[in-house]
Amino acid sequence: MNDPAFNISFRETLCPDDPDHIYHIAESCALFYPEELTVARELVEERLSKGETSGYYFIIAEKHGAPVGYTCFGPIPMTRNRFDLYWIAVLKSCQGTGIGRQLIQKTETRIQHMNGRRVYVETSSRDDYAPTHRFYQTCHYHQEAVLKDYYAPGDDKIIYTRTF
Amino acid sequence: MNDPAFNISFRETLCPDDPDHIYHIAESCALFYPEELTVARELVEERLSKGETSGYYFIIAEKHGAPVGYTCFGPIPMTRNRFDLYWIAVLKSCQGTGIGRQLIQKTETRIQHMNGRRVYVETSSRDDYAPTHRFYQTCHYHQEAVLKDYYAPGDDKIIYTRTF
Repeated sequence: MNDPAFNISFRETLCPDDPDHIYHIAESCALFYPEELTVARELVEERLSKGETSGYYFIIAEKHGAPVGYTCFGPIPMTRNRFDLYWIAVLKSCQGTGIGRQLIQKTETRIQHMNGRRVYVETSSRDDYAPTHRFYQTCHYHQEAVLKDYYAPGDDKIIYTRTF
Repeated sequence: MNDPAFNISFRETLCPDDPDHIYHIAESCALFYPEELTVARELVEERLSKGETSGYYFIIAEKHGAPVGYTCFGPIPMTRNRFDLYWIAVLKSCQGTGIGRQLIQKTETRIQHMNGRRVYVETSSRDDYAPTHRFYQTCHYHQEAVLKDYYAPGDDKIIYTRTF
């Protein structure tokens, strides 16, 4: 098969090893700070321990049965039908093969099944996030706001959104 | 004494009855949805059970020993020296007497002692929040961004910020 995304399957149910899998995926991106990787792992653990009351939902992409990407998302408390896409990451060695695009599409479909009407995603303005910005734009997200120097001096927060 | 803020004292340490006190203060404002009041209470409970690791800090204003206002704030994870002011509320019957102003000033001083350099606060664009908007502007906060229809159609999120 010429389709590089061939043999990718998706699951929503987490397994006990997923905190490690997801940490490994996020770490491979060479983009996130150690504190961010810790948070990435904690969200998986919270979902495993609390279930849906955690407010965190996951979609895991697997290639030949091994996790290679994931999204973490959930309804934004105190809003009507708004969702946050907290995390999307694909294993570095599998990037550029369409897995991220499939993940975000499946996530949007899931959100719509949960009556979601809009998705927000926040990201850094740093140069090493340029591929991330292009990815969101390609996926029909538009830049809604910029918070100057939010993360640190010279590191803005960009808020993207997509409405269904 | 003509100073209506006379006999106001402030404390940072929470007591076991504070979840009820704070719920009562927030409820008296006739501004927050039931779900928001539940969150207000939960943050106090989380601070009581987890201490500083909760990430939530409080300042309680008391008049003649009874809680009449409070702030809830904390460092924003994954940012450098940025803080969120999650909640500020004053008992309806005590509003307009300068307690809110004192609370925000004491909160800013506390944040600076924690090496905070900037405070963010989010609020609704709804008409009944107009006094809130004026309050932040008077307290030298400026409008950094607006997320259209964030909370619901016709209900934007306004993000204010102040840098020290």
